[in-house]
Amino acid sequence: MASKWKSATTPTHCSNQKDGPLTDHVTRAADILKGHRESIDRLDAILVYTLGERFKHTQAVGKLKAEHDLPPSDPAREANQIARLEDLASRADLDPEFAKNFLNFIITEVIHHHKKHQE
Amino acid sequence: MASKWKSATTPTHCSNQKDGPLTDHVTRAADILKGHRESIDRLDAILVYTLGERFKHTQAVGKLKAEHDLPPSDPAREANQIARLEDLASRADLDPEFAKNFLNFIITEVIHHHKKHQE
Repeated sequence: MASKWKSATTPTHCSNQKDGPLTDHVTRAADILKGHRESIDRLDAILVYTLGERFKHTQAVGKLKAEHDLPPSDPAREANQIARLEDLASRADLDPEFAKNFLNFIITEVIHHHKKHQE
Repeated sequence: MASKWKSATTPTHCSNQKDGPLTDHVTRAADILKGHRESIDRLDAILVYTLGERFKHTQAVGKLKAEHDLPPSDPAREANQIARLEDLASRADLDPEFAKNFLNFIITEVIHHHKKHQE
């Protein structure tokens, strides 16, 4: 008898309240997801405006290089930047592999723009 | 006579002062280049720390998606982000093509990380 009563009231996964707890769980997860996405959107705005500012400087550098017939790419400067970025990435707890790929992506795009400038 | 005197003093390109003006010109250009590079380095620090912060959020999203068996990629959200980024890019006077390539690069890296999380 006691064991029968016990087994009837022992909570099993979401059995005693339709799907309430599961819905709560999903709602909570959806709220957390929403919060993260709002932060990501704000951070993306920072990234875009910072990249816009960075681009103004690389455009000026490209113009200067074109005026002085300097090559669009500067391997010593780029090696320096990569090393500096790797150091910054470790301080910011950012995957250094990602930081390297990121800088390579930016440098490639910038060189592409410098080349267009010199053509 | 007068014409000879005139021709002797008519300034020709850097003829009357060894290579002084040319050196000044190069020095000035080098200073300007240095200033731009210092700004670029500071902006790169902003980018790395912002990417570090962004990554913390995408890692949390990846964990949440893995816990709820959601697919790592979310095409509707990504289309939304691309459209938003294009709008931000035009406000920041950033080449929208570059902004699009940039977001695609980030999304690809993030999905790659989410997939690693779900494996």
